[in-house]
Amino acid sequence: MSEPVNTKKITIALDAMGGDFAPKNEIEGAILAYKEKPAGSDFEIIFVGDENKINPELAGKVTYGLKYTIVHTSEVITMSDDPVAALKSKRGSSLYVAAEIHAKGQADAFVSAGNTGAMLSISTTLLGRIKGVTRPTIGTFMPTVNDTPVFLLDVGATVDMKARFLYEFAEMGNIYAKQFIGIENPRIGLLNIGEEPTKGTDVLKETYTLLQKADLNFIGNIEGRDILMGAADVVVCDGFTGNVVLKFAESFTGILKSKVKNYAYKNMINKLRVALMAPTLRSILSDFDYQNYGGVPLLGVNGVVIIGHGKSSPKAVKNMIIRSQEFIKNDVNSKIEKALEPKNVT
Amino acid sequence: MSEPVNTKKITIALDAMGGDFAPKNEIEGAILAYKEKPAGSDFEIIFVGDENKINPELAGKVTYGLKYTIVHTSEVITMSDDPVAALKSKRGSSLYVAAEIHAKGQADAFVSAGNTGAMLSISTTLLGRIKGVTRPTIGTFMPTVNDTPVFLLDVGATVDMKARFLYEFAEMGNIYAKQFIGIENPRIGLLNIGEEPTKGTDVLKETYTLLQKADLNFIGNIEGRDILMGAADVVVCDGFTGNVVLKFAESFTGILKSKVKNYAYKNMINKLRVALMAPTLRSILSDFDYQNYGGVPLLGVNGVVIIGHGKSSPKAVKNMIIRSQEFIKNDVNSKIEKALEPKNVT
Repeated sequence: MSEPVNTKKITIALDAMGGDFAPKNEIEGAILAYKEKPAGSDFEIIFVGDENKINPELAGKVTYGLKYTIVHTSEVITMSDDPVAALKSKRGSSLYVAAEIHAKGQADAFVSAGNTGAMLSISTTLLGRIKGVTRPTIGTFMPTVNDTPVFLLDVGATVDMKARFLYEFAEMGNIYAKQFIGIENPRIGLLNIGEEPTKGTDVLKETYTLLQKADLNFIGNIEGRDILMGAADVVVCDGFTGNVVLKFAESFTGILKSKVKNYAYKNMINKLRVALMAPTLRSILSDFDYQNYGGVPLLGVNGVVIIGHGKSSPKAVKNMIIRSQEFIKNDVNSKIEKALEPKNVT
Repeated sequence: MSEPVNTKKITIALDAMGGDFAPKNEIEGAILAYKEKPAGSDFEIIFVGDENKINPELAGKVTYGLKYTIVHTSEVITMSDDPVAALKSKRGSSLYVAAEIHAKGQADAFVSAGNTGAMLSISTTLLGRIKGVTRPTIGTFMPTVNDTPVFLLDVGATVDMKARFLYEFAEMGNIYAKQFIGIENPRIGLLNIGEEPTKGTDVLKETYTLLQKADLNFIGNIEGRDILMGAADVVVCDGFTGNVVLKFAESFTGILKSKVKNYAYKNMINKLRVALMAPTLRSILSDFDYQNYGGVPLLGVNGVVIIGHGKSSPKAVKNMIIRSQEFIKNDVNSKIEKALEPKNVT
């Protein structure tokens, strides 16, 4: 008899060379995840990467009993590598091998803070898609004026867009938001340039109709300003717009910090004022900190793939590892397959 | 002999019922513009709107010698009116009549804080397009980490997009940024999801080639994060993406204020901290204040049309009136026509 899914020990293939601070942050993140894991739960890590870098990094550390193995690789996919070329030419890379370990069933999840495009193309190729899914998708969480974040998808830069893809994104976003945000019936909004169903491109008009017919809490079109205002829990858009919005939002804290700095440089009194407000501002900006979300899943592939920001800190890597376990325990993929089953006409 | 353009007295048709606080802010803005006008310059205002509302508003005010006439209209185009329907059915509205006065040559410019879509459709119909322009466009200014803002266009929600349109936007944006930001050779960036020329849709790839060939300081593709980071002076994009980014950016200050408020509510110490930092934050956020830019032109129409935010304050209306005079004095439209002339092959 196989163990029930909730008590089975989970094995995670972690691309130890993925992020900008690899393997340091990957290793520290894994240890942190183990140290803070809830009583009764357990997991194992397969560090995939250059053992000559991983071993020295592990050497001096208290590991709190973390069970791990190392699978040695010497190649690395960089952030500037072309995803499709990497899929073909970098099969010895830590990212590829970690995905492959998961695809072969030797690990239950694949986690990396590496090249997002490469994760998308390699995972889709090695794992395949969930039945009913045409196009896997990547979403992102953003803060809102409410207590709960909003899940925006697709940000995975799928530039050709069909109503069917957007509909699938809505179904997948709905399931993931339920689990992650912990709400019963997420409000689904379609990103558009006006509220009326007749707004936008033909693809968006067609999507509007599809979403109305679907078994979703579809609240209609929403506009750019509604995202952070929390008008919806899940915002569906094409990958071009989503990618631009995501990167634009990331620069918001950048410009704010720069303005604060310029203001402080003007004179001593300003400098004092800024010194006084710095902790306040930091506390407020922490809501915009991707590290709190710690990675997002690649939804729609036949596996568990958690993608982290290239700049992931140990805390972010820890959260990615937690996300992958939640994803497995909540059986997200079966729910997606069920939601996208062709409905019987009764 | 006609007067040279620089000393000619300018007449401005102002839609007095346009903004959310009309006619109060329109009237106060016009007076403010007159009060602060540079010595030697002069202008007249035609207030277009309900005289039963305009006259009482003017009654108690010191007008500093502002010369004005009132053209009475009883109809108003609201923010929720459909632009195309308004063009046909609301010909007695303040917005339509003000545009018409300009189109007939009775005023040198048309200024309104009303329904942007209606301004676009009515102005394009009544004024026509500049020779060489296929699609008029609306841009917006945004702050950057540098001392100069960035001009993002199109935000006018042109959803069907061709390389030719984007190329025209680049040429028009180039000319307006030169004048408004006061830089010699604005850096033109094409908004995309990656820097490589092969990124994005087919339309974007074609646009990339057109912009490379053009007599512009084209710096290539830029990404969402580059806008506020000041990587380009002019950012060209399709109207859908531009509209989403513009509205998303507008909500930044909203969420920041809301986070500050929530933080202050937590306890007395936080409340004190926020009180201390409030003036600092206000000063920093003023860069994000649309009122400082005070309206943007509708570029590509055969006339001078300045569009304001619905929430325009008197200061914003004042700046819109200044913008319209600058536009005339700099002869922006002749420059656009010249830039879009078919080049002789030599």
